[in-house]
Amino acid sequence: MRIGAIEAGGTKFVCGIGDENGTIVDRVSFPTEMPETTIANVIAYFRDKEVEAIGVGSFGPIDLDPASPTYGHVTTTPKPGWSGYPLLGTLKEAFDVPFGWDTDVNAAAFGEATWGAARGLDSCVYYTIGTGIGVGVYAEGKMVHGLVHPEGGHVLTRRHPDDRFEGFCPYHGDCLEGMAAGPALEKRWNMKGKDIPADHPAWAIEAFYIGQAVAGTILLLSPKKSFWAAASCINGSCCR
Amino acid sequence: MRIGAIEAGGTKFVCGIGDENGTIVDRVSFPTEMPETTIANVIAYFRDKEVEAIGVGSFGPIDLDPASPTYGHVTTTPKPGWSGYPLLGTLKEAFDVPFGWDTDVNAAAFGEATWGAARGLDSCVYYTIGTGIGVGVYAEGKMVHGLVHPEGGHVLTRRHPDDRFEGFCPYHGDCLEGMAAGPALEKRWNMKGKDIPADHPAWAIEAFYIGQAVAGTILLLSPKKSFWAAASCINGSCCR
Repeated sequence: MRIGAIEAGGTKFVCGIGDENGTIVDRVSFPTEMPETTIANVIAYFRDKEVEAIGVGSFGPIDLDPASPTYGHVTTTPKPGWSGYPLLGTLKEAFDVPFGWDTDVNAAAFGEATWGAARGLDSCVYYTIGTGIGVGVYAEGKMVHGLVHPEGGHVLTRRHPDDRFEGFCPYHGDCLEGMAAGPALEKRWNMKGKDIPADHPAWAIEAFYIGQAVAGTILLLSPKKSFWAAASCINGSCCR
Repeated sequence: MRIGAIEAGGTKFVCGIGDENGTIVDRVSFPTEMPETTIANVIAYFRDKEVEAIGVGSFGPIDLDPASPTYGHVTTTPKPGWSGYPLLGTLKEAFDVPFGWDTDVNAAAFGEATWGAARGLDSCVYYTIGTGIGVGVYAEGKMVHGLVHPEGGHVLTRRHPDDRFEGFCPYHGDCLEGMAAGPALEKRWNMKGKDIPADHPAWAIEAFYIGQAVAGTILLLSPKKSFWAAASCINGSCCR
């Protein structure tokens, strides 16, 4: 079975082709421009690929409620042109195949549960730490969506006693994302995460916040695995 | 269908008979003594009741993993006589019917989802605040158990700026339970929760901690309902 995959990111779109055994046979990447341009690239890529199904993991917030009139839309993103864009619907008009549709971090968590670090387990929690912080929860064999979708990057943590940074989250100031996402490192230390040396005190503070959030999640959900992926703005590794 | 129900609490056991429509036809209560005495009372109660199934919501920690050799046991409770007691197995030896088995707070959350405040919804979160604090998570139509079972009462919250109480949790000091369960009120103000007047500053501090924990849970799980029940040691209402 040929399966199409779309990682719809705020910086780039990654599209690929794989099969039900996890073999990936092709992969491309486009920068994320205005939606019409970007989705035209996606449609052109899949046009001759004869995929039988497509899964989409999207940046958000997005509407995941099948009963909602705006199901499949990107909702209130500040990203120019994307707020209210019917991402899933536009793809469905182009390809008459079954679609999977979830947040980028839920797709990553589900990927780890299916093929990766949580393979064979019925629960895991996945943190992605980059420009923002996202949390994907997989519990009792299902992705957790709930009323809207989780925004676990915005939980409050205790402040590190040596940390005077006020936080950069426009909504909460010093929530987890405000204190530990990539821009927090950059604003606090006046250098990008990838340029901060490994022995710099920045990392003890960063670990303090991430550790507290992960511990709280483990207490609340008792997942069989918890892990996190850091994007290049944090530790210099390649975005997953 | 006649269904038996057991709420196995640290202070009392409540046993009852109901049916699949939610009608409760009988209910009794025993104090929780040593396990042999208590369970003998439970078995005597159900002996002539001709129930076709029994559900048990138990104080904990308990072993919920069917693959574990100690499945159905109370595990590491400080309660005299109960640590390691095979609660479910003892009941199963007495009654050859199907059993449901979960934590007390999960049973309460499942009850609210089935018959109560979250009826018809596929997610809710239930806090019980008494001698300790427990959290039951129901997500995507399933109770969340995970690796062991959640202990969401022990998450860290930020301290209230006017609160100098050190917390009473023997494991964490000033975690949520250590700051907001019944004994925290009593130790902080030298009176029991039920005796603290409604206009006392204790309640603003109590709300500060509970609100913070509930907000964090909503961010992480986006449940369709969140609610909490306070036992008599907090607000003078009857234990549910």
